[in-house]
Amino acid sequence: ESIPLMKVCTYADVVAAQDRIRGHVYRSPCVPSDILSRLCGAQVWSKLDHLQATGSFKERGARNRLASLSAEERQRGVIAVSAGNHALGLARHGSELGIAVQVVMPHYAPMVKVARCRELGAEVILHRSDFSAAQAHAHTVAKSSGAVFIPAFDHPQIIAGQGTIGLEILADVPHCAAIFVPVGGGGLAAGLALAVKQQRPDCKIIGVEPEHAASMYHALRHGGPCSVPTAPTLADGLAVAQVGRHCFDICQQLLDDVVLVDESSIAQAIVRLLEHEKTLLEGAGAAALAGALSANVLKRHDLLGKTIVLVLCGGNIDVNILNRVVQRGLAADGRICRVVCSLKDRPGVMAQLLAIIADAEGNVQEINHDRTFGPRDPALVTASLSIETRDHQHITAIHHALTAADIDWREG
Amino acid sequence: ESIPLMKVCTYADVVAAQDRIRGHVYRSPCVPSDILSRLCGAQVWSKLDHLQATGSFKERGARNRLASLSAEERQRGVIAVSAGNHALGLARHGSELGIAVQVVMPHYAPMVKVARCRELGAEVILHRSDFSAAQAHAHTVAKSSGAVFIPAFDHPQIIAGQGTIGLEILADVPHCAAIFVPVGGGGLAAGLALAVKQQRPDCKIIGVEPEHAASMYHALRHGGPCSVPTAPTLADGLAVAQVGRHCFDICQQLLDDVVLVDESSIAQAIVRLLEHEKTLLEGAGAAALAGALSANVLKRHDLLGKTIVLVLCGGNIDVNILNRVVQRGLAADGRICRVVCSLKDRPGVMAQLLAIIADAEGNVQEINHDRTFGPRDPALVTASLSIETRDHQHITAIHHALTAADIDWREG
Repeated sequence: ESIPLMKVCTYADVVAAQDRIRGHVYRSPCVPSDILSRLCGAQVWSKLDHLQATGSFKERGARNRLASLSAEERQRGVIAVSAGNHALGLARHGSELGIAVQVVMPHYAPMVKVARCRELGAEVILHRSDFSAAQAHAHTVAKSSGAVFIPAFDHPQIIAGQGTIGLEILADVPHCAAIFVPVGGGGLAAGLALAVKQQRPDCKIIGVEPEHAASMYHALRHGGPCSVPTAPTLADGLAVAQVGRHCFDICQQLLDDVVLVDESSIAQAIVRLLEHEKTLLEGAGAAALAGALSANVLKRHDLLGKTIVLVLCGGNIDVNILNRVVQRGLAADGRICRVVCSLKDRPGVMAQLLAIIADAEGNVQEINHDRTFGPRDPALVTASLSIETRDHQHITAIHHALTAADIDWREG
Repeated sequence: ESIPLMKVCTYADVVAAQDRIRGHVYRSPCVPSDILSRLCGAQVWSKLDHLQATGSFKERGARNRLASLSAEERQRGVIAVSAGNHALGLARHGSELGIAVQVVMPHYAPMVKVARCRELGAEVILHRSDFSAAQAHAHTVAKSSGAVFIPAFDHPQIIAGQGTIGLEILADVPHCAAIFVPVGGGGLAAGLALAVKQQRPDCKIIGVEPEHAASMYHALRHGGPCSVPTAPTLADGLAVAQVGRHCFDICQQLLDDVVLVDESSIAQAIVRLLEHEKTLLEGAGAAALAGALSANVLKRHDLLGKTIVLVLCGGNIDVNILNRVVQRGLAADGRICRVVCSLKDRPGVMAQLLAIIADAEGNVQEINHDRTFGPRDPALVTASLSIETRDHQHITAIHHALTAADIDWREG
């Protein structure tokens, strides 16, 4: 039942896609990073594909598929289901090519993406249901209107389009020893692997998936695409319950490994890319760094000190989510701490506490002073403080200063 | 006393600097932006010079100056005063060229920058005093050790080095009608203007300064560099009380305007660049966007609909500061709101309040429930809530829902 791989999508298809999208999809830079190199213990380059006009690599496949349609198909228009990046890519390139685009978006899609799709000229159908119901709805609409259905990943021309990123990476970093690529439905990983393994069979392709949506990881163990349970993940762009058939066939043959990353490592990757690379990634976009940083991966693949490329592929993070991620990242890096102190309820004790923290060069951000739900002893009150700090050592110094001043404190 | 401009630093010096730094300083991309174009009402391109290895354009001048030193001067090493980016640029290129670098940093310099300078091999002298005392200290050290003092902006080779950014911009966007450039000491603006005006006298160069450090703005009115009062600004990289003599002479002759921007517009520019361009800028680095967005500037210069370039020149923002900026930016954009409600102190009222907000699709982030300092009527309690919202319209809808449910509320 499995379709022979090289008949579905070949290296030549990726090269053809590159010609087809040239000048219409941004040829993004691939840049070396001293700091990420030190963090990872390898020579790290980053492919900044989140700098695409709509913020993700999805434009590659969308453009390639749209530009391959016949005149008659273009006339009929296209339809797709997407909560975000695929919709944005289709909207942008449909409008450029004069092809009508309908996108069915689940109601939980971020308002900014819905609005942006409309600005780009797409017709958005908001569907109050889950993703698979939205998918069914799109097929119904397609059947009645004649619009061409464009899948988000499991189509040879989508795969070939995404693969163009691999050709660009090899042109910029021809000597790379490995490429880390996020895996959702598998289209990007499959296309990239097709492009790279033809030229450089020795270059390792390492897929990265969130633990909360490990669909390729399990498909490879199971021997084929299967539906896996998913949980909400910061890498919402990778939250696919079942990988594509074509994508799977290519990945099974060409991927060297699939590593799983947890939510806190994805959050930390977002913060590190922000702080060190001055660049904003969504969870899916930052996953490659989380993969390269995950324990023993570089060592296991003999990549320490070698040149590796991280595919940073999407930047459409909601600013409210970013806000929460930054808060947690700061805590993980010791840039913020919380202490809860029990104080005698007497004038001046709070001033004394703040003076001790100021002397230790902590910058108090927030104070909660609670008389009602404090310790059992009514002569005591609880003060919980958020303090900006330099690092974990600095936090320890503040803890010592509190102890030395005989203050009853605990971490909050 | 004023040195004739074209003898101090010329277009030819900028071209020579370009040859000198080529291959050692990152040739940063200049990218068009649909969304910023719509926001500004012009065709907006961004020069992403914050992608330099040390996060700012300062490497250009630092490299040019260091590479111009004689063998004997290199032997003696160099010394500078800087709270950040100039120090980082010198540290990086001094280490590459085998030149010993000492930097005197004021004690309030962010720890991350101090640590990074040391990692890059520079000797950091932390000075517990203000900037001018640090400057005096550096000159004393230079006199006794023989180290060459490298000013942060007011030197022909620094100016010429910074000017290379102008040559790159014209190569990428030859038809640009105006360039917006942040002004601190004036080195970047002066060099850029030298580079651009020679090739394109009709291209407008518009300097952008924070209201809190309007040193070029006042110098131009005063007819020469003068010391102006400064206040803390998000654009700390531009917090210079007096512009350089050489920088002033060039800017007086070649700048078309200097516009002032306030702190909240700088904060909003940081958030917009983060959200729309997926790119992290420090205040100084984002100032150009704040300038282009400030009321009437584009209209006054007849730039509506024309092509303009924003010089985004530094990304070294402290993550704790970023955190605060994002919070405020979210509030300004209606992505977060705060309401304070007076509730009857009865079981279930809080649950009812939360149900109303949930029905209106608000996402409650934080609740402060205060019995002690609430309204005078002891039967009432105060609840203040932070709510994640979509936009200002959504906030209004939540307000209406509260009013409709007869809840006594106010904005918090």
